[in-house]
Order: sequence, then structure tokens, then C-alpha cells
Amino acid sequence: MYLRKKRHMAREVIVLRYGHRVIRDERVTSHCCLVARALGAQKIIIVGERDKVVKKGMEKVTRKWGGKFKIEFTNSWTNSLHRLKKKGFIVVHLTMYGLPISALSKTLENSKKIVLVIGSKKVERRMFEKSDYNVSVTSQPHSEIAALAIVLDRVFSGKELGKVFRNAKIRVIPSNGKKLVKKLQ
Amino acid sequence: MYLRKKRHMAREVIVLRYGHRVIRDERVTSHCCLVARALGAQKIIIVGERDKVVKKGMEKVTRKWGGKFKIEFTNSWTNSLHRLKKKGFIVVHLTMYGLPISALSKTLENSKKIVLVIGSKKVERRMFEKSDYNVSVTSQPHSEIAALAIVLDRVFSGKELGKVFRNAKIRVIPSNGKKLVKKLQ
Repeated sequence: MYLRKKRHMAREVIVLRYGHRVIRDERVTSHCCLVARALGAQKIIIVGERDKVVKKGMEKVTRKWGGKFKIEFTNSWTNSLHRLKKKGFIVVHLTMYGLPISALSKTLENSKKIVLVIGSKKVERRMFEKSDYNVSVTSQPHSEIAALAIVLDRVFSGKELGKVFRNAKIRVIPSNGKKLVKKLQ
Repeated sequence: MYLRKKRHMAREVIVLRYGHRVIRDERVTSHCCLVARALGAQKIIIVGERDKVVKKGMEKVTRKWGGKFKIEFTNSWTNSLHRLKKKGFIVVHLTMYGLPISALSKTLENSKKIVLVIGSKKVERRMFEKSDYNVSVTSQPHSEIAALAIVLDRVFSGKELGKVFRNAKIRVIPSNGKKLVKKLQ
């Protein structure tokens, strides 16, 4: 248990969401934020319009369910990636045109600092060039939310599913037949 | 290769999406359909309003990218589940209140006929009762799209990521730096 905690603490995974439009993308971007948090990332950086609804909603979730998940907005993804690369992050761009994720599984498991880039609108060619790896979760059209989930699952080798969030006000008691929730504070 | 194909052929996985409203849920439901198809399910049954935009969009994807994915609508999820149970399907309801998915991994890998139920709006208590298993992909709030992806990945043990879709008109050539697409027909 100690080792597992330590491993989680030692790693930094940030999601960069390329492209967000207020109202139109609200729900899908919120799904991306929630998945990033639930499956072990520390932060999401959203490239696009600053969206108070998404930000407040996400902060509310974190206050209630615990952890330290952060949400930020930026107008310049190139600046953000540049800064993160300088800090030692590898940039992994999830795209249906990339190499199969299986080819990168060892790198994902062993890297301490990872930025996972997920698109919404059409991604600029430069993103392919600026990324260290362009990888695909199937080469079929589907969903950036699903791709993010599968890749986080590979990064944390399935252990993220049992992650405990500190300072939660509420926690689910897993059950086969009922909704059981425990108040903690 | 022969064995893998055979295993895929021998199994039936159907997704039942509980709750869909025209326009409001269009994008999220489309993501669910695309993920179901890309990660190896044969069919999605949508409980709610018949949505031509979602249906046509999905049929277009299948014509272009191959495979035999089906999309259906129903007004009665109880009837649909009843019929499927009679045919030998087990019903697995994905909910943050359920038992951890890890507890069910052997069952998922070995069952030949599975219905995966995913919610959108609040799910009726009866769904918990009618399902054979209520399972969670983390007990944190996140996304039914992500939960579906992780569970399909467990059902097919990661092999779904390499699935080849027959009769495709177009196929991606995986690459680390460019968008490469091959026309097949």
C-alpha cells in the first residue's frame, strides 16, 4: 500500500485538451475533466475559451469527492507544451492516426512526467510535430474521452481504479444492489 | 490469428444506453455509439427518443470504416433486457455505486453474451435490481463513455484495440507524424 501511494505521488500526469468552445463543448469537456481526475491525472489544461461553468463544476466535484485536481485555461498550447517539456514532461498526443498505444506501453508505465494531449476540433499539423509520440487507441473514429480513459489505465496499470482521494466529504460504499454513500465530514 | 478471430466471432456484446434526449444528448450518445463499435461491441440499443441524426451518423461511420455495427432504439428497456436475458445474456450495469470491476474480470472475460448498461440521466432503482451485476469503474463521478471503454477493454483483454473491420472503404495507416489514410474501395 505504501509503495503504491509512493508511486502515484512520484508521477505527474497532465491532460491538455486542445480546443474548447463555451456552451457547445461544455458537456464533452466536462467528461474529459472528470475522467482525468477520476483516473489519476493531477491537472487538465484546456486550450480555448475560459469556461466558468466547466471550471466551477469541476472545482465543486473536487471539493466534494476529494483530491487536488486542478483545472486551467490557456490561449497558447505551444507555450504550455514548451514550458512542460522544459520541466521534463514527455508529450503524448492521442490521435486515431498515431502508432498503436501497445507500442508505447513500457514508456507510459515508466515515465514520471507525461502530458496527454486530446483533441476536440481538428488538430493542427503542428501538434503532430511538437509531440514526442502520436499514438492511437484503435485507428477507428471514436471518442477522446474513451481514448483518454484507456491511456490513463495503461499509464497506471489499472491501479488508478482503486485510487483513494484525500479530504473527500463523501464516499461511495461499493454494493451490488443499492446506492450507498457515506458522509465523511 | 485464427483463434483470435474465432473468439471475437463467438462472443456477443451489446451496449444498452439508458436515456437519450434528441439534441441535448446527441454528442454524448454519439460518443457512446462510436466507442461501442470501435472497441468491439456488435450493437447499441438506445432507450429514449428515436434520433435520426445519431442513427444516420453512426450508419455512415460503419459504411465508411467497416464492420457490422447495429444501432437500435427502444421505449422499454425492461422488455429489451428481458428478451436478451432469455437468449442467455448476462446484464452488467455500469454505475459508480457498484462493486469494483476488478471483482468481475473473470466473468467478463469468460461470458459469451454480455449486455453492458450505461446511464445518462439518473437510473431507476429497478435497473439495479434487474441487472445481474452492478459494477463500478472507480467509485468517483466521471463519464459513462470512459466507463464503457474500460469495461470493453476488460471484456476483450485489450485485443479489441487491434480489431480489423471488414468491408471498410478507408483505413488509417498508423504513423508517428502524419495523417495517413488508405482508400480500399
